[in-house]
Amino acid sequence: MILVNGNQTDVISVRDRGLQYGDGVFETIAVKNGVLLLWDYHWQRLQSACTRLHIVAPMEKIVLQEIDQLKTSSDLYVIKIIITRGSGGRGYRYGEMSTNRVIMRSEWPEYNVEFNSGITLFICETTIAHQPRLAGIKHLNRLENILARNEWDDDYAEGLMLSNNGNVIEGTMSNVFFVKDGQLFTPDLSQCGVEGVVRKAILQHAKGLGITFHTGDFTLHDLLGADEIFVSNSLLGIWPVKRLKSHELNVPGKKTLEIRQTLLQHGQIAG
Amino acid sequence: MILVNGNQTDVISVRDRGLQYGDGVFETIAVKNGVLLLWDYHWQRLQSACTRLHIVAPMEKIVLQEIDQLKTSSDLYVIKIIITRGSGGRGYRYGEMSTNRVIMRSEWPEYNVEFNSGITLFICETTIAHQPRLAGIKHLNRLENILARNEWDDDYAEGLMLSNNGNVIEGTMSNVFFVKDGQLFTPDLSQCGVEGVVRKAILQHAKGLGITFHTGDFTLHDLLGADEIFVSNSLLGIWPVKRLKSHELNVPGKKTLEIRQTLLQHGQIAG
Repeated sequence: MILVNGNQTDVISVRDRGLQYGDGVFETIAVKNGVLLLWDYHWQRLQSACTRLHIVAPMEKIVLQEIDQLKTSSDLYVIKIIITRGSGGRGYRYGEMSTNRVIMRSEWPEYNVEFNSGITLFICETTIAHQPRLAGIKHLNRLENILARNEWDDDYAEGLMLSNNGNVIEGTMSNVFFVKDGQLFTPDLSQCGVEGVVRKAILQHAKGLGITFHTGDFTLHDLLGADEIFVSNSLLGIWPVKRLKSHELNVPGKKTLEIRQTLLQHGQIAG
Repeated sequence: MILVNGNQTDVISVRDRGLQYGDGVFETIAVKNGVLLLWDYHWQRLQSACTRLHIVAPMEKIVLQEIDQLKTSSDLYVIKIIITRGSGGRGYRYGEMSTNRVIMRSEWPEYNVEFNSGITLFICETTIAHQPRLAGIKHLNRLENILARNEWDDDYAEGLMLSNNGNVIEGTMSNVFFVKDGQLFTPDLSQCGVEGVVRKAILQHAKGLGITFHTGDFTLHDLLGADEIFVSNSLLGIWPVKRLKSHELNVPGKKTLEIRQTLLQHGQIAG
């Protein structure tokens, strides 16, 4: 079921700049037992993304009302919000225009349950380009992720994307973390990549858990020397990595488990 | 007037991957006295872009039939073709799906006629990221161009975009050329930028005109030492540049005029 600007429909104007140019942002939210997990973080990221792209964000109250209209009795489902700059404009120039908002409900993705026990990571050839103006935000220009995700079939659960200069940035649909000597590491995303809401929650919990963490530039070599590796996103939660190239890891690792438990206890991931 | 997969409508499925992810390509074509200018080049680029993104291109015959359905008696108008990968898929993964095609007719843009005599170029702060997998093609991920184009209001006709390492790449909606000592130079687009159809035509004519041309890496410094500068695209044709920062140029330059005349004689630009 879909609402476009509050109206139930499954179509949108061809002139919408989301279609014409990928001119917008989105959020994908896990709903568990009627609760929007990590809503505050999703909303903050959406607002911040709109600000950076000079898109007028809708009112939170309206978005929440519309999400409420789509609620079902399912234990688990997904709400996707797309905010585009609006319809029209003169070429790339936009001027004043009225934002379009799409709220979609969809079924929970059928992830292989074994992935919770450990996945093998593919290494994508498609890189992520450095673009600080777009880094961190979840915008609608996702061709890099699409090309990367379609480099493999079903043999891997997720693929790792590197920047042009060989730094590990993220998975095609997730953020990546590794543990070495009890400390937590995750790539800096100031040049490219998406700052996931679960990533944010993990970094906020690390202090309370007494885990020292570092965001910075890391290579595949660093990951190949890691004690633990895991990926995170708002739907899959946390998947431990059991293999990366020839590097076999014991799963689930101690810190990975501790972090997943903490997120679960705080009702921030679905399972 | 708009056709979506052959049906007259101005809406498209919200699930279309063009909207969801910018997962598609487009072409903007000048129609003059009923003739699609540079059609072969537009079609070749569209096909090549589809191939590179693993999108199934529609049949040329069908696209031409639909364009014909939109014809009017106006001397000049614009046809835009958008081809998206289709609707659906599981996240970034696509699998087999049926392409969506949008054919739109719109009015000729109201460019200031003075631009034909010379424009002042803005220099954009928004850079173009290096992404060889997407370089050259006219895909739907255009946030960089949008951010760049909206750095200025109406004071400039066009803005110059540089790569992260300071090479001049293109205008926000055009390709850029310069002339120095009678030779023609234009940026290499193997790392980023869109290979315009008029750019292609110009490079093909250069030989016949006895003009030596070079594609390569050029900086703002090179442009500031140029004898002539001009920008090109399929709608505006050729605009000579009369000012770039403090560099004033005599317009229209001899080579610029010669190239524009040749394109006009071959019916490749509108005016």
